[in-house]
Amino acid sequence: VLQNFGKAEKTTDEPFNEIVLRIEKQHDAAHHLQKELRMYANCLREMSVASKNLTTAIAETYEQEWTRESEVRAHLQTYDLLWNDCLQTLQDSVSVPLNNYITSFPALKAKIAKRGRKMVDYDNSRHNLEVLQAAKKKDEVKIQKAQEEMKEAKKIYDELNNELHTELPDFNNSRVTFYAGLLSSFFSAEHVFHSEVSKLDGSLNEICQELGRDFAQFVYQPKRPLRKSTAKSLVQPVRQSQISSSTSKAVSDL
Amino acid sequence: VLQNFGKAEKTTDEPFNEIVLRIEKQHDAAHHLQKELRMYANCLREMSVASKNLTTAIAETYEQEWTRESEVRAHLQTYDLLWNDCLQTLQDSVSVPLNNYITSFPALKAKIAKRGRKMVDYDNSRHNLEVLQAAKKKDEVKIQKAQEEMKEAKKIYDELNNELHTELPDFNNSRVTFYAGLLSSFFSAEHVFHSEVSKLDGSLNEICQELGRDFAQFVYQPKRPLRKSTAKSLVQPVRQSQISSSTSKAVSDL
Repeated sequence: VLQNFGKAEKTTDEPFNEIVLRIEKQHDAAHHLQKELRMYANCLREMSVASKNLTTAIAETYEQEWTRESEVRAHLQTYDLLWNDCLQTLQDSVSVPLNNYITSFPALKAKIAKRGRKMVDYDNSRHNLEVLQAAKKKDEVKIQKAQEEMKEAKKIYDELNNELHTELPDFNNSRVTFYAGLLSSFFSAEHVFHSEVSKLDGSLNEICQELGRDFAQFVYQPKRPLRKSTAKSLVQPVRQSQISSSTSKAVSDL
Repeated sequence: VLQNFGKAEKTTDEPFNEIVLRIEKQHDAAHHLQKELRMYANCLREMSVASKNLTTAIAETYEQEWTRESEVRAHLQTYDLLWNDCLQTLQDSVSVPLNNYITSFPALKAKIAKRGRKMVDYDNSRHNLEVLQAAKKKDEVKIQKAQEEMKEAKKIYDELNNELHTELPDFNNSRVTFYAGLLSSFFSAEHVFHSEVSKLDGSLNEICQELGRDFAQFVYQPKRPLRKSTAKSLVQPVRQSQISSSTSKAVSDL
Protein backbone atom coordinates (compact mmCIF):
# COMPACT_ATOMS: atom_id res chain seq x y z
CA VAL A 1 0.00 0.00 0.00
CA LEU A 2 2.74 2.44 0.95
CA GLN A 3 4.61 1.70 -2.27
CA ASN A 4 1.56 2.61 -4.30
CA PHE A 5 1.81 6.14 -2.95
CA GLY A 6 5.48 6.26 -3.80
CA LYS A 7 6.28 6.89 -0.15
CA ALA A 8 8.31 5.07 2.51
CA GLU A 9 9.29 2.14 0.34
CA LYS A 10 10.31 -0.96 2.26
CA THR A 11 14.03 -1.62 2.28
CA THR A 12 14.84 -4.49 -0.05
CA ASP A 13 18.16 -6.33 -0.34
CA GLU A 14 18.17 -9.30 -2.71
CA PRO A 15 21.85 -10.27 -2.21
CA PHE A 16 21.21 -10.40 1.54
CA ASN A 17 18.18 -12.68 1.16
CA GLU A 18 20.24 -14.93 -1.07
CA ILE A 19 23.08 -15.31 1.43
CA VAL A 20 20.53 -16.02 4.19
CA LEU A 21 19.17 -18.88 2.04
CA ARG A 22 22.73 -20.21 1.62
CA ILE A 23 23.22 -20.12 5.39
CA GLU A 24 19.97 -22.10 5.77
CA LYS A 25 21.25 -24.66 3.27
CA GLN A 26 24.59 -24.79 5.10
CA HIS A 27 22.74 -25.43 8.37
CA ASP A 28 20.64 -28.23 6.83
CA ALA A 29 23.73 -29.94 5.38
CA ALA A 30 25.52 -29.82 8.75
CA HIS A 31 22.42 -31.18 10.48
CA HIS A 32 22.14 -34.06 8.03
CA LEU A 33 25.80 -34.95 8.45
CA GLN A 34 25.46 -34.76 12.25
CA LYS A 35 22.48 -37.11 12.20
CA GLU A 36 24.20 -39.73 10.01
CA LEU A 37 27.43 -39.44 11.99
CA ARG A 38 25.52 -40.16 15.20
CA MET A 39 23.89 -43.23 13.65
CA TYR A 40 27.29 -44.36 12.40
CA ALA A 41 28.91 -43.89 15.82
CA ASN A 42 26.05 -45.80 17.49
CA CYS A 43 26.49 -48.70 15.07
CA LEU A 44 30.24 -48.60 15.61
CA ARG A 45 29.66 -48.84 19.37
CA GLU A 46 27.42 -51.91 18.92
CA MET A 47 29.91 -53.34 16.46
CA SER A 48 32.72 -52.96 18.99
CA VAL A 49 30.67 -54.98 21.50
CA ALA A 50 29.86 -57.67 18.92
CA SER A 51 33.53 -57.81 17.94
CA LYS A 52 34.58 -58.15 21.58
CA ASN A 53 32.12 -61.02 22.08
CA LEU A 54 33.25 -62.72 18.89
CA THR A 55 36.95 -62.45 19.72
CA THR A 56 36.17 -63.81 23.21
CA ALA A 57 34.43 -66.82 21.59
CA ILE A 58 37.38 -67.30 19.24
CA ALA A 59 39.80 -67.12 22.20
CA GLU A 60 37.73 -69.80 23.97
CA THR A 61 37.79 -71.96 20.84
CA TYR A 62 41.54 -71.58 20.40
CA GLU A 63 42.95 -74.21 22.74
CA GLN A 64 46.02 -73.78 24.85
CA GLU A 65 48.03 -76.42 22.96
CA TRP A 66 47.42 -74.89 19.54
CA THR A 67 50.02 -73.04 17.45
CA ARG A 68 51.28 -69.73 18.93
CA GLU A 69 48.34 -69.62 21.32
CA SER A 70 49.59 -66.78 23.53
CA GLU A 71 50.22 -64.64 20.46
CA VAL A 72 46.68 -65.30 19.22
CA ARG A 73 45.27 -64.37 22.62
CA ALA A 74 47.25 -61.10 22.73
CA HIS A 75 46.21 -60.20 19.17
CA LEU A 76 42.54 -60.86 19.93
CA GLN A 77 42.68 -58.48 22.88
CA THR A 78 44.24 -55.77 20.71
CA TYR A 79 41.04 -55.55 18.65
CA ASP A 80 39.23 -54.13 21.67
CA LEU A 81 41.84 -51.41 22.08
CA LEU A 82 41.60 -50.48 18.41
CA TRP A 83 37.81 -50.25 18.53
CA ASN A 84 37.94 -48.09 21.64
CA ASP A 85 40.60 -45.82 20.11
CA CYS A 86 38.57 -45.43 16.95
CA LEU A 87 35.40 -44.53 18.84
CA GLN A 88 37.25 -42.05 21.04
CA THR A 89 39.00 -40.37 18.11
CA LEU A 90 35.77 -40.06 16.14
CA GLN A 91 34.14 -38.52 19.19
CA ASP A 92 36.95 -36.04 19.89
CA SER A 93 38.02 -35.00 16.42
CA VAL A 94 34.79 -35.33 14.42
CA SER A 95 31.61 -35.36 16.53
CA VAL A 96 32.63 -32.61 18.96
CA PRO A 97 33.88 -30.14 16.27
CA LEU A 98 30.74 -30.79 14.18
CA ASN A 99 28.48 -30.24 17.20
CA ASN A 100 30.33 -27.00 18.04
CA TYR A 101 30.06 -25.85 14.42
CA ILE A 102 26.31 -26.38 14.55
CA THR A 103 26.01 -24.16 17.64
CA SER A 104 27.17 -21.21 15.45
CA PHE A 105 23.92 -21.15 13.52
CA PRO A 106 21.46 -20.06 16.27
CA ALA A 107 23.70 -17.06 17.14
CA LEU A 108 23.94 -16.04 13.47
CA LYS A 109 20.22 -16.52 12.94
CA ALA A 110 19.42 -14.39 15.99
CA LYS A 111 21.58 -11.63 14.51
CA ILE A 112 19.76 -11.97 11.17
CA ALA A 113 16.40 -11.67 12.96
CA LYS A 114 17.63 -8.60 14.88
CA ARG A 115 18.62 -6.96 11.58
CA GLY A 116 15.05 -7.67 10.35
CA ARG A 117 13.55 -5.90 13.38
CA LYS A 118 15.94 -2.95 13.03
CA MET A 119 14.99 -2.70 9.35
CA VAL A 120 11.30 -2.43 10.30
CA ASP A 121 12.19 0.27 12.86
CA TYR A 122 14.11 2.16 10.18
CA ASP A 123 11.31 1.85 7.60
CA ASN A 124 8.74 3.01 10.18
CA SER A 125 10.82 6.03 11.20
CA ARG A 126 11.25 6.97 7.53
CA HIS A 127 7.53 6.63 6.89
CA ASN A 128 6.77 8.72 9.97
CA LEU A 129 9.09 11.48 8.73
CA GLU A 130 7.55 11.44 5.23
CA VAL A 131 4.04 11.73 6.67
CA LEU A 132 5.09 14.77 8.76
CA GLN A 133 6.85 16.38 5.79
CA ALA A 134 3.86 15.82 3.53
CA ALA A 135 1.38 17.45 6.02
CA LYS A 136 -0.30 20.70 4.87
CA LYS A 137 0.54 22.40 8.19
CA LYS A 138 4.15 21.49 8.91
CA ASP A 139 5.28 21.09 12.55
CA GLU A 140 9.03 21.80 12.39
CA VAL A 141 9.67 20.60 15.95
CA LYS A 142 8.08 17.22 15.22
CA ILE A 143 9.88 16.96 11.89
CA GLN A 144 13.20 17.73 13.60
CA LYS A 145 12.57 15.03 16.19
CA ALA A 146 11.43 12.49 13.53
CA GLN A 147 14.57 13.24 11.49
CA GLU A 148 16.76 12.47 14.51
CA GLU A 149 14.84 9.27 15.20
CA MET A 150 15.16 8.26 11.56
CA LYS A 151 18.94 8.95 11.57
CA GLU A 152 19.38 6.91 14.75
CA ALA A 153 17.32 3.98 13.35
CA LYS A 154 19.29 4.12 10.09
CA LYS A 155 22.58 4.10 11.97
CA ILE A 156 21.64 1.05 14.04
CA TYR A 157 20.30 -0.78 11.00
CA ASP A 158 23.28 0.10 8.77
CA GLU A 159 25.80 -1.01 11.33
CA LEU A 160 24.17 -4.40 11.84
CA ASN A 161 23.49 -4.76 8.12
CA ASN A 162 27.07 -3.97 7.13
CA GLU A 163 28.40 -6.37 9.73
CA LEU A 164 26.21 -9.19 8.43
CA HIS A 165 27.04 -8.37 4.82
CA THR A 166 30.63 -9.30 5.68
CA GLU A 167 30.01 -11.96 8.30
CA LEU A 168 27.48 -14.13 6.46
CA PRO A 169 29.52 -14.64 3.26
CA ASP A 170 32.62 -15.20 5.40
CA PHE A 171 30.84 -17.80 7.47
CA ASN A 172 29.34 -19.41 4.38
CA ASN A 173 32.72 -19.54 2.63
CA SER A 174 34.38 -20.98 5.72
CA ARG A 175 32.35 -24.18 5.33
CA VAL A 176 34.94 -25.44 2.82
CA THR A 177 37.87 -25.14 5.22
CA PHE A 178 35.73 -26.48 8.03
CA TYR A 179 34.68 -29.60 6.14
CA ALA A 180 38.19 -30.06 4.77
CA GLY A 181 39.42 -30.30 8.37
CA LEU A 182 36.47 -32.32 9.63
CA LEU A 183 36.47 -34.89 6.82
CA SER A 184 40.24 -35.13 6.94
CA SER A 185 39.96 -35.96 10.65
CA PHE A 186 37.24 -38.52 9.92
CA PHE A 187 39.13 -40.30 7.14
CA SER A 188 42.37 -40.11 9.09
CA ALA A 189 40.78 -41.79 12.15
CA GLU A 190 39.21 -44.44 9.91
CA HIS A 191 42.49 -44.95 8.08
CA VAL A 192 44.42 -45.58 11.29
CA PHE A 193 41.75 -47.95 12.61
CA HIS A 194 41.32 -50.02 9.46
CA SER A 195 45.02 -50.30 8.69
CA GLU A 196 45.80 -51.47 12.24
CA VAL A 197 42.91 -53.97 12.19
CA SER A 198 44.01 -55.18 8.78
CA LYS A 199 47.54 -55.87 10.11
CA LEU A 200 46.10 -57.86 13.03
CA ASP A 201 43.87 -59.83 10.63
CA GLY A 202 46.81 -60.59 8.38
CA SER A 203 48.91 -61.81 11.29
CA LEU A 204 46.11 -63.98 12.71
CA ASN A 205 45.40 -65.41 9.25
CA GLU A 206 49.04 -66.51 8.99
CA ILE A 207 48.96 -68.15 12.42
CA CYS A 208 45.75 -70.03 11.54
CA GLN A 209 47.29 -71.29 8.31
CA GLU A 210 50.29 -72.47 10.32
CA LEU A 211 47.91 -74.20 12.72
CA GLY A 212 46.28 -75.93 9.74
CA ARG A 213 49.65 -77.20 8.51
CA ASP A 214 50.65 -78.35 12.02
CA PHE A 215 47.49 -80.44 12.38
CA ALA A 216 47.00 -81.45 8.75
CA GLN A 217 46.97 -85.15 9.65
CA PHE A 218 43.73 -84.68 11.54
CA VAL A 219 41.42 -83.87 8.65
CA TYR A 220 38.15 -85.67 9.34
CA GLN A 221 37.08 -88.06 6.59
CA PRO A 222 34.16 -90.23 7.73
CA LYS A 223 33.79 -93.54 5.85
CA ARG A 224 30.15 -92.72 5.25
CA PRO A 225 29.36 -89.01 5.03
CA LEU A 226 27.22 -87.96 7.99
CA ARG A 227 25.41 -85.66 5.64
CA LYS A 228 26.35 -84.56 2.19
CA SER A 229 26.64 -80.92 3.18
CA THR A 230 28.64 -81.80 6.26
CA ALA A 231 31.07 -84.00 4.41
CA LYS A 232 31.62 -81.26 1.87
CA SER A 233 32.32 -78.62 4.47
CA LEU A 234 34.70 -80.83 6.41
CA VAL A 235 36.59 -82.41 3.55
CA GLN A 236 37.00 -79.20 1.61
CA PRO A 237 37.89 -76.47 4.08
CA VAL A 238 38.47 -73.12 2.46
CA ARG A 239 42.23 -72.99 2.53
CA GLN A 240 42.64 -76.76 2.06
CA SER A 241 45.16 -76.46 -0.79
CA GLN A 242 47.45 -74.32 1.34
CA ILE A 243 47.07 -76.47 4.42
CA SER A 244 47.55 -79.92 2.92
CA SER A 245 50.63 -79.00 0.92
CA SER A 246 52.76 -78.82 4.04
CA THR A 247 54.20 -81.33 6.40
CA SER A 248 52.90 -81.64 9.91
CA LYS A 249 54.74 -81.72 13.17
CA ALA A 250 54.23 -84.34 15.84
CA VAL A 251 51.38 -83.57 18.18
CA SER A 252 51.37 -85.25 21.51
CA ASP A 253 48.37 -83.86 23.27
CA LEU A 254 45.44 -84.79 21.04
CA VAL B 1 21.64 -104.84 42.06
CA LEU B 2 22.85 -107.19 39.35
CA GLN B 3 26.46 -106.41 40.19
CA ASN B 4 25.87 -107.41 43.82
CA PHE B 5 25.16 -110.97 42.64
CA GLY B 6 28.35 -111.00 40.59
CA LYS B 7 26.27 -111.67 37.48
CA ALA B 8 25.70 -109.89 34.16
CA GLU B 9 27.78 -106.84 35.00
CA LYS B 10 26.86 -103.73 32.99
CA THR B 11 29.31 -102.92 30.21
CA THR B 12 31.44 -99.99 31.23
CA ASP B 13 33.79 -98.00 29.00
CA GLU B 14 35.41 -94.97 30.65
CA PRO B 15 37.46 -93.87 27.59
CA PHE B 16 34.23 -93.86 25.58
CA ASN B 17 32.39 -91.72 28.13
CA GLU B 18 35.31 -89.35 28.14
CA ILE B 19 35.34 -88.88 24.39
CA VAL B 20 31.56 -88.33 24.43
CA LEU B 21 32.12 -85.51 26.94
CA ARG B 22 34.75 -84.03 24.63
CA ILE B 23 32.27 -84.15 21.71
CA GLU B 24 29.73 -82.33 23.91
CA LYS B 25 32.31 -79.68 24.70
CA GLN B 26 33.18 -79.44 21.02
CA HIS B 27 29.49 -78.95 20.19
CA ASP B 28 29.09 -76.23 22.83
CA ALA B 29 32.14 -74.34 21.56
CA ALA B 30 30.87 -74.46 17.97
CA HIS B 31 27.44 -73.26 19.12
CA HIS B 32 28.92 -70.36 21.03
CA LEU B 33 31.03 -69.33 18.07
CA GLN B 34 28.02 -69.60 15.75
CA LYS B 35 25.93 -67.39 18.04
CA GLU B 36 28.58 -64.66 18.29
CA LEU B 37 29.31 -64.85 14.57
CA ARG B 38 25.61 -64.28 13.84
CA MET B 39 25.51 -61.24 16.15
CA TYR B 40 28.66 -59.94 14.51
CA ALA B 41 27.26 -60.42 10.99
CA ASN B 42 24.01 -58.68 12.01
CA CYS B 43 25.95 -55.71 13.38
CA LEU B 44 28.08 -55.64 10.25
CA ARG B 45 24.90 -55.50 8.14
CA GLU B 46 23.58 -52.54 10.18
CA MET B 47 27.01 -50.94 10.02
CA SER B 48 27.04 -51.23 6.23
CA VAL B 49 23.70 -49.37 6.09
CA ALA B 50 24.94 -46.66 8.50
CA SER B 51 28.12 -46.33 6.46
CA LYS B 52 26.12 -46.01 3.22
CA ASN B 53 23.96 -43.28 4.77
CA LEU B 54 27.00 -41.46 6.12
CA THR B 55 28.89 -41.56 2.82
CA THR B 56 25.72 -40.32 1.08
CA ALA B 57 25.59 -37.37 3.52
CA ILE B 58 29.30 -36.69 2.92
CA ALA B 59 28.75 -36.83 -0.85
CA GLU B 60 25.92 -34.28 -0.46
CA THR B 61 28.17 -32.06 1.66
CA TYR B 62 31.03 -32.25 -0.81
CA GLU B 63 30.12 -29.61 -3.40
CA GLN B 64 30.66 -29.94 -7.11
CA GLU B 65 33.28 -27.19 -7.27
CA TRP B 66 35.47 -28.66 -4.53
CA THR B 67 38.84 -30.33 -5.08
CA ARG B 68 38.75 -33.63 -7.08
CA GLU B 69 35.02 -33.90 -6.51
CA SER B 70 34.36 -36.73 -8.98
CA GLU B 71 37.15 -38.79 -7.42
CA VAL B 72 35.66 -38.27 -3.96
CA ARG B 73 32.24 -39.32 -5.23
CA ALA B 74 33.66 -42.50 -6.84
CA HIS B 75 35.63 -43.37 -3.68
CA LEU B 76 32.57 -42.91 -1.48
CA GLN B 77 30.60 -45.35 -3.62
CA THR B 78 33.39 -47.92 -3.37
CA TYR B 79 32.77 -48.25 0.38
CA ASP B 80 29.38 -49.82 -0.36
CA LEU B 81 30.97 -52.41 -2.63
CA LEU B 82 33.58 -53.29 0.01
CA TRP B 83 30.94 -53.70 2.74
CA ASN B 84 28.85 -55.92 0.48
CA ASP B 85 31.87 -58.02 -0.51
CA CYS B 86 32.87 -58.44 3.13
CA LEU B 87 29.38 -59.54 4.16
CA GLN B 88 29.12 -61.97 1.25
CA THR B 89 32.55 -63.51 1.90
CA LEU B 90 31.84 -63.92 5.63
CA GLN B 91 28.56 -65.60 4.73
CA ASP B 92 30.05 -67.96 2.13
CA SER B 93 33.39 -68.87 3.67
CA VAL B 94 32.66 -68.65 7.40
CA SER B 95 28.96 -68.81 8.33
CA VAL B 96 27.99 -71.57 5.88
CA PRO B 97 30.93 -73.92 6.74
CA LEU B 98 30.33 -73.37 10.47
CA ASN B 99 26.61 -74.07 10.10
CA ASN B 100 27.39 -77.23 8.12
CA TYR B 101 29.93 -78.32 10.73
CA ILE B 102 27.30 -77.97 13.41
CA THR B 103 24.91 -80.25 11.52
CA SER B 104 27.44 -83.10 12.07
CA PHE B 105 26.69 -83.25 15.77
CA PRO B 106 23.07 -84.52 15.74
CA ALA B 107 24.06 -87.42 13.42
CA LEU B 108 26.97 -88.35 15.69
CA LYS B 109 24.85 -88.01 18.80
CA ALA B 110 22.15 -90.25 17.29
CA LYS B 111 24.84 -92.86 16.65
CA ILE B 112 26.07 -92.55 20.24
CA ALA B 113 22.49 -93.00 21.52
CA LYS B 114 22.05 -96.04 19.27
CA ARG B 115 25.21 -97.59 20.71
CA GLY B 116 23.70 -97.00 24.19
CA ARG B 117 20.54 -98.88 23.25
CA LYS B 118 22.53 -101.72 21.68
CA MET B 119 24.65 -101.94 24.83
CA VAL B 120 21.49 -102.37 26.91
CA ASP B 121 20.31 -105.11 24.49
CA TYR B 122 23.68 -106.86 24.82
CA ASP B 123 23.70 -106.59 28.64
CA ASN B 124 20.13 -107.92 28.80
CA SER B 125 20.90 -110.86 26.51
CA ARG B 126 23.96 -111.72 28.61
CA HIS B 127 21.96 -111.52 31.82
CA ASN B 128 19.24 -113.68 30.29
CA LEU B 129 21.81 -116.34 29.35
CA GLU B 130 23.40 -116.29 32.81
CA VAL B 131 20.02 -116.77 34.45
CA LEU B 132 19.27 -119.77 32.21
CA GLN B 133 22.73 -121.25 32.82
CA ALA B 134 22.38 -120.77 36.60
CA ALA B 135 18.99 -122.49 36.74
CA LYS B 136 18.86 -125.77 38.69
CA LYS B 137 17.02 -127.46 35.84
CA LYS B 138 18.84 -126.47 32.63
CA ASP B 139 16.83 -126.06 29.40
CA GLU B 140 19.46 -126.65 26.69
CA VAL B 141 17.17 -125.44 23.84
CA LYS B 142 16.54 -122.14 25.60
CA ILE B 143 20.21 -121.78 26.49
CA GLN B 144 21.17 -122.44 22.86
CA LYS B 145 18.72 -119.78 21.67
CA ALA B 146 19.85 -117.29 24.35
CA GLN B 147 23.47 -117.88 23.37
CA GLU B 148 22.69 -117.06 19.74
CA GLU B 149 20.76 -113.97 20.77
CA MET B 150 23.64 -112.88 22.97
CA LYS B 151 26.16 -113.43 20.15
CA GLU B 152 24.03 -111.42 17.75
CA ALA B 153 23.53 -108.56 20.27
CA LYS B 154 27.28 -108.57 20.99
CA LYS B 155 28.07 -108.45 17.28
CA ILE B 156 25.78 -105.50 16.65
CA TYR B 157 27.06 -103.68 19.72
CA ASP B 158 30.75 -104.36 19.00
CA GLU B 159 30.47 -103.20 15.42
CA LEU B 160 28.85 -99.89 16.38
CA ASN B 161 31.13 -99.51 19.38
CA ASN B 162 34.31 -100.11 17.35
CA GLU B 163 33.16 -97.70 14.68
CA LEU B 164 32.52 -94.97 17.25
CA HIS B 165 35.80 -95.68 19.02
CA THR B 166 37.54 -94.62 15.82
CA GLU B 167 35.05 -92.04 14.58
CA LEU B 168 34.63 -89.97 17.73
CA PRO B 169 38.34 -89.31 18.38
CA ASP B 170 38.80 -88.64 14.66
CA PHE B 171 35.96 -86.16 14.64
CA ASN B 172 37.16 -84.58 17.86
CA ASN B 173 40.72 -84.25 16.54
CA SER B 174 39.48 -82.80 13.28
CA ARG B 175 38.27 -79.68 15.11
CA VAL B 176 41.80 -78.26 14.90
CA THR B 177 42.00 -78.48 11.11
CA PHE B 178 38.42 -77.30 10.83
CA TYR B 179 38.97 -74.18 12.96
CA ALA B 180 42.33 -73.55 11.29
CA GLY B 181 40.47 -73.32 7.96
CA LEU B 182 37.47 -71.47 9.33
CA LEU B 183 39.42 -68.84 11.28
CA SER B 184 41.86 -68.43 8.43
CA SER B 185 38.88 -67.69 6.16
CA PHE B 186 37.49 -65.25 8.70
CA PHE B 187 40.72 -63.32 9.21
CA SER B 188 41.46 -63.40 5.51
CA ALA B 189 38.05 -61.86 4.66
CA GLU B 190 38.53 -59.25 7.39
CA HIS B 191 42.06 -58.54 6.20
CA VAL B 192 40.95 -57.88 2.62
CA PHE B 193 38.07 -55.68 3.76
CA HIS B 194 40.01 -53.56 6.26
CA SER B 195 43.05 -53.09 4.05
CA GLU B 196 40.89 -51.96 1.09
CA VAL B 197 38.86 -49.60 3.33
CA SER B 198 42.08 -48.28 4.84
CA LYS B 199 43.42 -47.44 1.35
CA LEU B 200 40.21 -45.59 0.49
CA ASP B 201 40.37 -43.68 3.79
CA GLY B 202 43.97 -42.72 3.14
CA SER B 203 43.17 -41.48 -0.34
CA LEU B 204 40.15 -39.47 0.84
CA ASN B 205 42.15 -37.99 3.71
CA GLU B 206 44.74 -36.73 1.20
CA ILE B 207 42.07 -35.17 -1.00
CA CYS B 208 40.48 -33.42 2.00
CA GLN B 209 43.84 -32.03 3.06
CA GLU B 210 44.33 -30.76 -0.49
CA LEU B 211 40.86 -29.19 -0.30
CA GLY B 212 41.89 -27.46 2.93
CA ARG B 213 45.01 -26.03 1.26
CA ASP B 214 43.03 -24.90 -1.79
CA PHE B 215 40.53 -22.96 0.33
CA ALA B 216 42.83 -21.89 3.17
CA GLN B 217 41.98 -18.20 2.65
CA PHE B 218 38.41 -18.87 3.77
CA VAL B 219 39.03 -19.70 7.40
CA TYR B 220 36.25 -18.06 9.44
CA GLN B 221 37.46 -15.65 12.09
CA PRO B 222 34.56 -13.62 13.50
CA LYS B 223 35.54 -10.27 15.07
CA ARG B 224 33.57 -11.22 18.17
CA PRO B 225 33.36 -14.95 18.88
CA LEU B 226 29.80 -16.21 18.42
CA ARG B 227 30.38 -18.51 21.34
CA LYS B 228 33.60 -19.53 22.96
CA SER B 229 33.21 -23.20 22.05
CA THR B 230 32.21 -22.29 18.50
CA ALA B 231 35.09 -19.95 17.93
CA LYS B 232 37.49 -22.59 19.20
CA SER B 233 36.20 -25.27 16.88
CA LEU B 234 36.27 -22.97 13.86
CA VAL B 235 39.56 -21.23 14.44
CA GLN B 236 41.46 -24.38 15.38
CA PRO B 237 40.36 -27.12 13.00
CA VAL B 238 42.13 -30.40 13.64
CA ARG B 239 44.58 -30.39 10.80
CA GLN B 240 45.01 -26.60 10.88
CA SER B 241 48.80 -26.72 10.89
CA GLN B 242 48.87 -28.80 7.73
CA ILE B 243 46.20 -26.76 5.98
CA SER B 244 47.45 -23.25 6.71
CA SER B 245 51.04 -23.94 5.71
CA SER B 246 50.17 -24.03 2.03
CA THR B 247 49.22 -21.52 -0.56
CA SER B 248 45.72 -21.35 -1.97
CA LYS B 249 44.52 -21.27 -5.51
CA ALA B 250 42.06 -18.73 -6.87
CA VAL B 251 38.45 -19.67 -6.31
CA SER B 252 35.91 -18.06 -8.55
CA ASP B 253 32.65 -19.61 -7.52
CA LEU B 254 32.35 -18.87 -3.82
